[in-house]
Amino acid sequence: MLVSAPSLTDWCAVAFRAAGMPETDARLTAESLVEADLRGVESHGVMRVPIYIERLTRGVIEPVPAIRTVRQTRSTAVVDGGNGMGQVVGVFAMSVAIEKAALENEPAFVSVFNSNHFGAAAYFVEMASRRNMIGFAYTISGINHMVPWGGAEAMLGNNPFAVAMPIAGSDPMVLDMACSVAARGKIIVAAKEGRAIPADWAVNAAGQPTTDASEALGGFMSPVGGPKGYALTLTIGLLSTMLSGASFGREVTHQYEDFDNPQNIGHLFGVLPIAAFEEEATYATRMSKAASEIRGARRASGVDRLYLPGEREAELLQFRSRAGIPLSPEVRRDLDAVALKLGILKL
Amino acid sequence: MLVSAPSLTDWCAVAFRAAGMPETDARLTAESLVEADLRGVESHGVMRVPIYIERLTRGVIEPVPAIRTVRQTRSTAVVDGGNGMGQVVGVFAMSVAIEKAALENEPAFVSVFNSNHFGAAAYFVEMASRRNMIGFAYTISGINHMVPWGGAEAMLGNNPFAVAMPIAGSDPMVLDMACSVAARGKIIVAAKEGRAIPADWAVNAAGQPTTDASEALGGFMSPVGGPKGYALTLTIGLLSTMLSGASFGREVTHQYEDFDNPQNIGHLFGVLPIAAFEEEATYATRMSKAASEIRGARRASGVDRLYLPGEREAELLQFRSRAGIPLSPEVRRDLDAVALKLGILKL
Repeated sequence: MLVSAPSLTDWCAVAFRAAGMPETDARLTAESLVEADLRGVESHGVMRVPIYIERLTRGVIEPVPAIRTVRQTRSTAVVDGGNGMGQVVGVFAMSVAIEKAALENEPAFVSVFNSNHFGAAAYFVEMASRRNMIGFAYTISGINHMVPWGGAEAMLGNNPFAVAMPIAGSDPMVLDMACSVAARGKIIVAAKEGRAIPADWAVNAAGQPTTDASEALGGFMSPVGGPKGYALTLTIGLLSTMLSGASFGREVTHQYEDFDNPQNIGHLFGVLPIAAFEEEATYATRMSKAASEIRGARRASGVDRLYLPGEREAELLQFRSRAGIPLSPEVRRDLDAVALKLGILKL
Repeated sequence: MLVSAPSLTDWCAVAFRAAGMPETDARLTAESLVEADLRGVESHGVMRVPIYIERLTRGVIEPVPAIRTVRQTRSTAVVDGGNGMGQVVGVFAMSVAIEKAALENEPAFVSVFNSNHFGAAAYFVEMASRRNMIGFAYTISGINHMVPWGGAEAMLGNNPFAVAMPIAGSDPMVLDMACSVAARGKIIVAAKEGRAIPADWAVNAAGQPTTDASEALGGFMSPVGGPKGYALTLTIGLLSTMLSGASFGREVTHQYEDFDNPQNIGHLFGVLPIAAFEEEATYATRMSKAASEIRGARRASGVDRLYLPGEREAELLQFRSRAGIPLSPEVRRDLDAVALKLGILKL
């Protein structure tokens, strides 16, 4: 089933309004989710609406948060997210970073606490690239699914980070990655179908590699590159929390299971204005040359085209903006249940 | 064979002096290499002396470089490395970042061009952590061994980056990683011994996965996590070069094969002073708690101890500082050849 992006955005905004969020924030959150679906990143799209609404209506996320800068220098800030939706807090914090950087023509970094799941990290770094800045976004995840290397206790999230670099006359290069070998969703599917999984996807509750999908679900996600992925997810987690006092390690409550305690999720946003380092035109020429070299490299046999990170997603966004967004029957059913619960029209 | 760190440092410094470097620079470079050996990162230790000496004596690295800041703002700089040794240029640039950050209590970033291979990235970020700053270091590699995802042309280096975060009363947490699944050295060993390699280590010259080590050496290193590692190494490469005009892609000449053209290697260094975001004591308490939680997590069976990234290396440094550094017969022989060539005493 295809839904147009504006219809889907409108419906999500109505849902968030019904859950108590102000119009502007409701729309911003809706747009951020729908953008993820447009980009083909369904895991961070409207499939998240049910859990967000659940947390909002049970009062564990604040629909009308008092977001404020509690500390700042010319080029840094620490933002208290007021336990608001991560998308709203994230846009506030990244905007502070961008405005500081634009005013001073200097790098700017903003650390955030008392926030929540912010959706796709790409959304925030793209804000920076639209202002001709390199953008960085780090967040700690709202679920601990990973262990310290050699461990057998979920102490770490599958923490994502994103970097965007502007390319003149083109979509930016956008890296947006988390640190596990495979998405947990794939293991859930394998478990349902009784299929084995590759031995490098997960470890069991004792910390040993397993090919049994059900056992894996009772265990932990394996980090990409083994100790490299562990170091990476730990670093992203610490960068996202230590400068502001957000939850880390055992303090992180489970986004899908704990409806009593606010999560106190932390993020770190950073921007480097191109103009602080280089003539913008010079950077633009240089970056365009690099991008065409990568795109034009010799291809492996059977490969039609080489993509920059984020390029596939940007093209899918163009396509789905015209053709519509495919929603699975499961997501559709979940959104219908949300409509029923909130007493709003179905999608 | 064990060598004491001071002896090894002295010998390396004499070698670099004999190749034309000033005393201070020669010693700095020697110390940086020996620190890598002390930390067990032999790939970035004194085994690099022969290629550095070769490049210095053939005039493709400038032993007495005119390193200078060609552009700056309060919190950024662009540094021309004068085609000097990467270690010397790197310390200069990271020092500029640290001094700017300390003066302003703000983030600072320094972009570098016209540099060379700088050794272990960890060395520079540790400089930041000693000043109670979070340090970032990115560099483009001096050899293209990787392809854009789906490609069959070496367009990318196995680019490393490092992050260090200070921990009060302890060595800092240090992430220092490159982007390939396996080190190329392991494939070289497998090829010598006629052993097969795992299918995810490399692709052949046509861009297809291979378990034949010799074929792999004629091909390209596979990135960790497939497209994730590609996106990561590309991003590190672009961050290291696009802000300063250092070599990227086809412009990168081969460190071990091209002795006619300076490499114009690029780096990016960044620091975030803790004090710009948070009371230093508060951060220290928070970070110590996080570190002990990670170290104290439940362990998988058979695992004696959990380590923070960089902790093993820091302990090995302490141990080897007392016990000495083991040098393989091959490295020893290569250093002897350097001594003969330079007309200095053997180690």
